[in-house]
Amino acid sequence: MSVDGEVGKEVHKPDHPASVGWTRSRKAVLFQDAPLRLEAGGSLGPVEMEYEIYGRLNKSRDNVILICHALTGDAHVAGWDAAPEGPLLEYRKTKPGWWDQMVGPGKAIDTNRFMVLCSNVIGSCYGTTGPSSLNPETGRPWGLSFPMVTIGDWARQQYELLSLLGISRVRAVVGGSMGGQMALEMGLAYPDLMDDLIILSAGHTVTSQGLAFSVVGRHAILNDPDFNNGDYYAGNGPRPLAGLAVARMMAQITYLSEESMGFKFGRRLRGKESPDFTLTGVDFELESYLNHQAESFVKRYDPNSYLYLTRAMDYYDAADKWGGGDLAVMAERLKARTMVVSFSSDWLFPPELCRELVSGLCLARKPVSYVNVPSRYGHDAFLVETETVRRLLTCYLKSFK
Amino acid sequence: MSVDGEVGKEVHKPDHPASVGWTRSRKAVLFQDAPLRLEAGGSLGPVEMEYEIYGRLNKSRDNVILICHALTGDAHVAGWDAAPEGPLLEYRKTKPGWWDQMVGPGKAIDTNRFMVLCSNVIGSCYGTTGPSSLNPETGRPWGLSFPMVTIGDWARQQYELLSLLGISRVRAVVGGSMGGQMALEMGLAYPDLMDDLIILSAGHTVTSQGLAFSVVGRHAILNDPDFNNGDYYAGNGPRPLAGLAVARMMAQITYLSEESMGFKFGRRLRGKESPDFTLTGVDFELESYLNHQAESFVKRYDPNSYLYLTRAMDYYDAADKWGGGDLAVMAERLKARTMVVSFSSDWLFPPELCRELVSGLCLARKPVSYVNVPSRYGHDAFLVETETVRRLLTCYLKSFK
Repeated sequence: MSVDGEVGKEVHKPDHPASVGWTRSRKAVLFQDAPLRLEAGGSLGPVEMEYEIYGRLNKSRDNVILICHALTGDAHVAGWDAAPEGPLLEYRKTKPGWWDQMVGPGKAIDTNRFMVLCSNVIGSCYGTTGPSSLNPETGRPWGLSFPMVTIGDWARQQYELLSLLGISRVRAVVGGSMGGQMALEMGLAYPDLMDDLIILSAGHTVTSQGLAFSVVGRHAILNDPDFNNGDYYAGNGPRPLAGLAVARMMAQITYLSEESMGFKFGRRLRGKESPDFTLTGVDFELESYLNHQAESFVKRYDPNSYLYLTRAMDYYDAADKWGGGDLAVMAERLKARTMVVSFSSDWLFPPELCRELVSGLCLARKPVSYVNVPSRYGHDAFLVETETVRRLLTCYLKSFK
Repeated sequence: MSVDGEVGKEVHKPDHPASVGWTRSRKAVLFQDAPLRLEAGGSLGPVEMEYEIYGRLNKSRDNVILICHALTGDAHVAGWDAAPEGPLLEYRKTKPGWWDQMVGPGKAIDTNRFMVLCSNVIGSCYGTTGPSSLNPETGRPWGLSFPMVTIGDWARQQYELLSLLGISRVRAVVGGSMGGQMALEMGLAYPDLMDDLIILSAGHTVTSQGLAFSVVGRHAILNDPDFNNGDYYAGNGPRPLAGLAVARMMAQITYLSEESMGFKFGRRLRGKESPDFTLTGVDFELESYLNHQAESFVKRYDPNSYLYLTRAMDYYDAADKWGGGDLAVMAERLKARTMVVSFSSDWLFPPELCRELVSGLCLARKPVSYVNVPSRYGHDAFLVETETVRRLLTCYLKSFK
């Protein structure tokens, strides 16, 4: 996601009363005794897991809000990392957590009221076991020998972490994009776990175009001459960053809309009156923007993780998995109240797809709220339309109990 | 383009009465005495040029229809290449010219009535001087030392070829996509050259998304570790085909629509009941399709040509060039009758863009016909909606004189 829209720019420094302040990530080790049996076959364990917590658990242990992060997100949802390290060092020095605008004291997801929990998913590269982690059997990074993981596995992972923390029921599971797929999966796999499901910019599956872009992004990485079959971690050898950069630039286009791209960049030239007519250089603002997105991304993301996580998104089809292809049958399982939010110009998880999901819930007579927010910000809107999302979350979380 | 839709599949063999039969490309050498002064600076000459002709010039020499090809097209519009060679050998053995369905005896562009002419643009790799040609000064392929070319240069190139052939006025200039941009440019640069302009699936410029995808496609090629600064022609060394493949796959998505992709592939698995959960293999039909598109494309296209031609498309802005940013001022220059055809699901050159162009012409009180064809085939529709395009072209070309 590219949180750099014209709206929602306000940043709270760590000493601001609405900030959760300085944060430190926590570690848990799961599946030590019995490895996690993976949906796609095989097993994995132990799994080291990075997570963060803001706010306090109440006495009745029922004020938890579990947040599920998106494709390139991490456990660091809010506040400022007190001890950034590794590939995130520079990135985290300059920015609070990825949903700081929504999570904090007095904010929509109010840490005075809720204990907020988010953990990094298996396969990612932000502190949870993934392809860049060492395979304990070989002492070398897993690379492509890391097993396939699915959104179902991530739901199990979240569930186990909650169990470890002694939490048997949460107030809400909230997620956007890939995190929204994961929130839905948690509602289906653990229907008794939560009161509420809040799904933003996501659906029960991906569209054909979404799948296609994902395929091409992976193709760019897999066919980068420096990919070396995923074994590129050693020493200072080349890494498939050209492929990853292309995957990111392409994805970036799908996060914006034609309208927002036209508004922000259009065909404006970068600091010049007339074009240089350059084949290899930069003439358009839009080029410069896409290049910049790619450059900063490849510094902070692992190409193998990109492969695993996007593939998990592609494979997810909740209607197939839980309803034999029928959304209403799938929805029968749900016990949570559900809110689905789409954004009018989102073409990665378009309103049509969200409405299909909502229709399935309606057919199954499940309590569902649906809002299609008019927005020009495309898929990014769930991170950029701060005011609207803030109002929606605040109202929704206040309207029950 | 991907001419493989469900419609318009009919192929006429060379002995079919509606086929122009076996064809042979022709060569011309232009700009021998005075090199072509290029719009973006510099000059080029001599320029070897490949073109094809079908039908006969009438006595009054006014029955010519000039066709402008699209990005990955060539001069071989109709019929079957009698002597295919080079990278096109296999490709041309199995297929007639790229617009065979529209061009031939008795067809919409009737070769019994018109002399049809198409030439390969400068910078391409299909017989006209381009980056893969030998630079006469060095005896080595130009590579990136080939000068930047523009759509304006291609218009001049067509004009000079017509002059060489003794043709001072043509009945119509017709083009789709990049070819439509070029047709418009010919109308603006040489307003007295033609009676009619027919512009399909194209506009006076590209959209922000179009520009963005183009930028990413080039990025994939330029940053392919095998690109070697464009100098990859020698011997059996590696070529930046991984980058070109990615550029093509991504472009392919923009040629289809979500609806046509969903209809043709959706999430269907390739010859299996349940997914293999493979990270590097193929599970979805859509993957297989995109892979196949890329594989066949990299066999027949030069990465450097892809860079030059897409960049020329990006830079084109007819309103800027001819109207100081004002489409109506630009349109004042036009003397031809114009027909603009858009397709409802085309999101590369969307109906909105075409309507802008049409509005400009209307404001300048120019004779313009506009049709927005309802179609689910996206940008490819101009090649795939055979019946509709056939009817439109036939009626339009019969309605005058």
